[in-house]
Amino acid sequence: ESGATARVRYLLNGALPVQDVARLLESSPPKERKLLWELIDDKNEGEVLQYLPEEIGIQFMKTMDTERLLAASERFDNDDLADILQQLPETLVKEVLASMTAQNRARMEALLSYSDDTAGGLMNTDTITIRPNITVDIVFRFLRRHTQLPDMTDNLLVVSRSDRFLGTLPLTKLLVADPSDTVRDIMVTDCPYITANQPVSEVASLFEKMDLVSAPVIDAESKKLLGRITIDDVVDVIRDEAEHSMLSMAGLDDDEDTFAPIMQTTKRRAVWLGINLITAFIASYVIGLFQNTLDQVVALAILMPIVASMGGIAGSQVLTLVIRGIALNQIGAANTSWLLNRELVVGLLNGLLWATVIAALTAFWFDSLEIAYIIAGAIVINLIFAALTGTLLPILLKRLGIDPALAGSVILTTVTDVIGFLSFLGLATIFLL
Amino acid sequence: ESGATARVRYLLNGALPVQDVARLLESSPPKERKLLWELIDDKNEGEVLQYLPEEIGIQFMKTMDTERLLAASERFDNDDLADILQQLPETLVKEVLASMTAQNRARMEALLSYSDDTAGGLMNTDTITIRPNITVDIVFRFLRRHTQLPDMTDNLLVVSRSDRFLGTLPLTKLLVADPSDTVRDIMVTDCPYITANQPVSEVASLFEKMDLVSAPVIDAESKKLLGRITIDDVVDVIRDEAEHSMLSMAGLDDDEDTFAPIMQTTKRRAVWLGINLITAFIASYVIGLFQNTLDQVVALAILMPIVASMGGIAGSQVLTLVIRGIALNQIGAANTSWLLNRELVVGLLNGLLWATVIAALTAFWFDSLEIAYIIAGAIVINLIFAALTGTLLPILLKRLGIDPALAGSVILTTVTDVIGFLSFLGLATIFLL
Repeated sequence: ESGATARVRYLLNGALPVQDVARLLESSPPKERKLLWELIDDKNEGEVLQYLPEEIGIQFMKTMDTERLLAASERFDNDDLADILQQLPETLVKEVLASMTAQNRARMEALLSYSDDTAGGLMNTDTITIRPNITVDIVFRFLRRHTQLPDMTDNLLVVSRSDRFLGTLPLTKLLVADPSDTVRDIMVTDCPYITANQPVSEVASLFEKMDLVSAPVIDAESKKLLGRITIDDVVDVIRDEAEHSMLSMAGLDDDEDTFAPIMQTTKRRAVWLGINLITAFIASYVIGLFQNTLDQVVALAILMPIVASMGGIAGSQVLTLVIRGIALNQIGAANTSWLLNRELVVGLLNGLLWATVIAALTAFWFDSLEIAYIIAGAIVINLIFAALTGTLLPILLKRLGIDPALAGSVILTTVTDVIGFLSFLGLATIFLL
Repeated sequence: ESGATARVRYLLNGALPVQDVARLLESSPPKERKLLWELIDDKNEGEVLQYLPEEIGIQFMKTMDTERLLAASERFDNDDLADILQQLPETLVKEVLASMTAQNRARMEALLSYSDDTAGGLMNTDTITIRPNITVDIVFRFLRRHTQLPDMTDNLLVVSRSDRFLGTLPLTKLLVADPSDTVRDIMVTDCPYITANQPVSEVASLFEKMDLVSAPVIDAESKKLLGRITIDDVVDVIRDEAEHSMLSMAGLDDDEDTFAPIMQTTKRRAVWLGINLITAFIASYVIGLFQNTLDQVVALAILMPIVASMGGIAGSQVLTLVIRGIALNQIGAANTSWLLNRELVVGLLNGLLWATVIAALTAFWFDSLEIAYIIAGAIVINLIFAALTGTLLPILLKRLGIDPALAGSVILTTVTDVIGFLSFLGLATIFLL
């Protein structure tokens, strides 16, 4: 082993904080990533895996033998482990489960029954529960029996004898309470809680709206306490959600690995290019309808991309705004018509403004007032259609259960290209020939 | 007052949670928003303002007289109030400051001295501080003297007699500690802390990396404790950051109000359309260079948007990925060349794949093998340039201190349009004429 390798090994195994080791792996190309991983001692693997993005962590775990996997899995929080087990081969999962204590296995099997995108899939089981009839003084004595409390414990959870959720006792209240008060006296009963089947997006809005650090998760029917969700996991959901729109609009995956290998990247990108090729050929087909017109006035061929491009830009501004509005739950039946109206007026005003500018430049360039009028008309028409499509398309896609961020930009571009070429070349055919 | 109005007034003033009232205002068009605001009682205004996005809140505050503003400002956390004061007229600010107690005024003036995008601008002054030499038992007695502890208190902050920051005492440690231990025995001294001038983006990564609920803010030189930052404010930063790239790529503002009035929207959008018009005219100019070629082979005019559009799509995939990688601090000198190399190979492979498909379709459509070869060549060339530009442009812009999300997409489209038209029409001029 060379000195440099020994030095890297030293850095990876304790000298650097484990979060930084994970960051380093994440920012490394595939080959380096694998080399670095091999330098991490078996006993530190679990700790590092915890902080790696799931997609990358799972690749490593698939290469580990069962024994190392079991050792690593001990370092995981239950909720993270459940997420990962859901993606490992069945036989491995069975071995991991078999290695657990009965209580832990039962908990894990419960967690595994929830889908990744529900509160149940996000929750952890590390709750500290108390009964309502004990006094504050006893609560303190009970807590002191622990060697440590779970991270992000901001509430004790109050449950009945049958584990039904009754309320929370925030530590900030406990610490200022009279020692002789009972939990029932000071607990908070109108606190926010989450049911196990709620989608994670709802969980994220609840945390953001109510400024929560943690929230209890209960079973919708039995009202039994199942676990809790903490803000660190919700922050990941919020980042993913906010990134989702941007990545989808470019046809990229949410969990896109920046340093994915060549073939994987090529395949994923090829699909998106193929879809866009269809829209490009549709646009070309529309231009082809006017072959005769183009043959006679070549200036039209030179100018036509301007009409399509201005429509595309105006449309994607509206589309982006509406997609974000939908993601933030701001847009509904009550304000859609106001929004559409505003966008149409804005489209008309900007259409008139830029049509004038473009017409002036065109008249000057090609010394033709006729072409100037025609391109001005086409710009106004295309910007109005762009506003219409940009506003209504994502709302419609959402209702159809199609992701507006993914499908929206492709369809929008098709519309603004087709309307742009159709109006410009159509007007030219009518007025020039 | 009609029954409906009375009903709405009732809902707005206590029947609905204040967070929902804020959400309702945010999701309302300007006129309804103003009507709703007028139905909120003076005494509830401060509470609602707290939960409104800054841009909207400030519009309302500018219409309030000083007395109402003073009353409302009492409900604000210091950090939020400081943000807002920075945007109100000087005279109002003076009156608000004059109405405060001397201690609070001094704190507020300190907060006002920090810029909005630094840790100082994000911090709050509601810390609970203790000295290292007292016992756990005395800490408990000290806490019980409070009627309540600030929200999101997960740590007590340990300071010296001269207010120098020494470490934290997490409540989770305090609660399991032996009452006779001193704070010094159990406090955490290697805890993360923030200096007042750190940019908020660094604060956000620290919170995400270390899973923090709150962190102390200290003065870089004197090491004195200035305040603390809590996760609820950091979540807003994280959402803004993640949204920033998407909104900027469409030329929209970060704090874009979905329901901004017509004129405001028209003006903001007009600027972006104007910038893009320049790139569209550049593309047209390039096409114009080949007027003679287009005049002779009209098929080229029909097909040329396909070359430009495939380049644009491929380029913006790379651009989006790299912009996100930069935002997540994944991309640096160590991996740029690997990334560029991968993107060039992916561009070449996808170029070859789709060039073949497009060539076959073209040969079939226009019954010309020559045009098929020419468009195939142009597609490969444009996809390679798209990969090059998509990878290097954002890295270069970032080094120049220009926001890659804002300027990147415009410049990229210019490049892919110009290279697309130039290579397609250029090859055609060489081989067809």
